[in-house]
Amino acid sequence: MTKKALIAQIRKKNSFLCIGLDVDLEKIPAHLLETADPIFEFNKQIIDATHDLAVAYKPNTAFYEAYGLDGWKSLEKTINYLNENYPEIFTIADAKRGDIGNTSTRYAKAFFENLSFDALTVAPYMGQDSVEPFLAFVDKFTILLALTSNKGGLDFQGLQTDKFQVYKQVLEKSLTWKGSEQLMYVVGATKPEYFKEIRKIVPNHFLLVPGVGAQGGDLEAVCKNGLNKDIGLLINSSRGIIYASNGLDFAQKAREKALEIQQQMKKILALIA
Amino acid sequence: MTKKALIAQIRKKNSFLCIGLDVDLEKIPAHLLETADPIFEFNKQIIDATHDLAVAYKPNTAFYEAYGLDGWKSLEKTINYLNENYPEIFTIADAKRGDIGNTSTRYAKAFFENLSFDALTVAPYMGQDSVEPFLAFVDKFTILLALTSNKGGLDFQGLQTDKFQVYKQVLEKSLTWKGSEQLMYVVGATKPEYFKEIRKIVPNHFLLVPGVGAQGGDLEAVCKNGLNKDIGLLINSSRGIIYASNGLDFAQKAREKALEIQQQMKKILALIA
Repeated sequence: MTKKALIAQIRKKNSFLCIGLDVDLEKIPAHLLETADPIFEFNKQIIDATHDLAVAYKPNTAFYEAYGLDGWKSLEKTINYLNENYPEIFTIADAKRGDIGNTSTRYAKAFFENLSFDALTVAPYMGQDSVEPFLAFVDKFTILLALTSNKGGLDFQGLQTDKFQVYKQVLEKSLTWKGSEQLMYVVGATKPEYFKEIRKIVPNHFLLVPGVGAQGGDLEAVCKNGLNKDIGLLINSSRGIIYASNGLDFAQKAREKALEIQQQMKKILALIA
Repeated sequence: MTKKALIAQIRKKNSFLCIGLDVDLEKIPAHLLETADPIFEFNKQIIDATHDLAVAYKPNTAFYEAYGLDGWKSLEKTINYLNENYPEIFTIADAKRGDIGNTSTRYAKAFFENLSFDALTVAPYMGQDSVEPFLAFVDKFTILLALTSNKGGLDFQGLQTDKFQVYKQVLEKSLTWKGSEQLMYVVGATKPEYFKEIRKIVPNHFLLVPGVGAQGGDLEAVCKNGLNKDIGLLINSSRGIIYASNGLDFAQKAREKALEIQQQMKKILALIA
C-alpha cells in the first residue's frame, strides 16, 4: 500500500485507529473454542464488526507463535482474509524482527511477500544494515521501534549520548538510510510529552502509537503534539477493544469500543481540518 | 540444560563449536531438493556428520520463516531430531525476539516449551521488562544481543553515553536483572579487541560469538581475551561449515571443516588446561 492510500483511507473513515489482534485462547469467548480454528474465527468476527472504524490491524506474532504451527496457520488465514475482503486496510505484522543484512531480507520476504503484510515492526539495535533490507521492498513499510511504552523502555532508549538520547539517535540516523521514506516509528502513548521533540526530528513520518486505552484521555495529549499535515498517527488499541466482552456479543461490544475511539478521532480531525 | 552440563560437554568433546543451521534452498545440494523435506534432510545429515565435533546447533529462524508453514515444520522437525537423538547438544533458536512483558512470555513459551530449545537470542532495545520474562524459565538461556558483528553494529551499540558505550550499558544493566545467571551474550568475532573490556563487565557468562570463519585466525584472538574459567565461549560458524560443498559429499565436507575448527579448539584448550 502507498502512504497516499493510507492517508486517503484515514480521511474517508475519519479514523486513524489500529486494532491489535493479540489473540489469547484463555480470553476469547468459550463458544469459539469449539470451532475448527478459534483464533481465526475470533479475528474474522472482530474484523467484520470493526473494519469501517479502523484503518489498520496489527497481529502481534508472539501470540501466534505461542500456538506453534496451528498459530501460524491462523495468522496466515487472518492476513489472507484481510487482504481478500478488505484490501483498503493497512496490515501490520508486529514481529519486532531484525538481523544482519541478508537474514533481514528473509524476514522481509516472509512478511512482505509470503504473507503480504503492508508493514512490519523492526528492532533497531543492530543498526543500518539490519534495517535497510526491509526498506528495499516497494510500497512496504518498516516500523522501527523508537520509544516504547513499557516500563523498561527507557533503560537503553533513554540513555543520554553525546548528542541526545538513544531513541532520538535512532530517529535521526534512520532518516539517512536508503529507503527512509518507507519508515514509520513506534512511539508509546504513555509519554505524550515526548511527541513534540520527536516531531522536530521526524515531522513527516507516521508514528504507530500503542498504549492508548478506550478511555481516550491520552489520545488528545498524543494528538496535540503528534499529528502532522498527513495526520501521521496510527493509534493502536488491542485488549481494550477485542476483549470488551467474552460473551456471545463480543464482536458487537468490540465495535462499540472501536466506535467510541473513532468518534473521538473524528472530533479531533474536525478541529484541525 | 544446565550450564554445568554444557561445560561438561565442552570438556568431553574438546570443542566449543556451535554450527549455524541457516538453510537456503538455493545453496543446498540439488539432490536433496527431491526429498519430501529438503531443509530437514539437509540439517539431519549435517547434524549426523558433525554432532561429535560441535556442542551446539543454532538455526536462525529467518531462514525457516522465509519458507512459511513448510519452513516452520522443518524447524520443528530439526529441533525434535536434535532433542531425540543428541540430547547432550545445546540448542539455540537464533530468533532475536523481544517484546513487552507478557508478550515476551509468549515467545519464551514458543521456543522454550513448545519447541524445547535450550536457548533463544533476544534483542535488548526494550529493556528490563522485555527480557526478564525469558529469564524466568528454568534451565533455559537467554542470549542477549550485546555487540554484533555486522557493519552497522556500532550505529547504536557504539554510542557513547555518560558512562560508557550502549553495548556496555546493556551488559552491565542486565546483570542486575532477575534471573541474570541465565544470560549469555552475543559478541561478534570481528572485534576481538573488545573482548578484554567485555570480560571486565561479564567475567562469568558465556558469550556466543558469530563471525569466525573456517580460517581460524580470529579464533585465537577471540580466545585470548574471551575465554574464562568455564571456557565461556561458544564460537559459531554457519556457511563456512554447512556449505563447504554442495555435492553428494556435502555432509563429509562439512565434517572436515568442523573437524579443522575443533582441532584448533582442542589445542587452545590444552594450552589453558
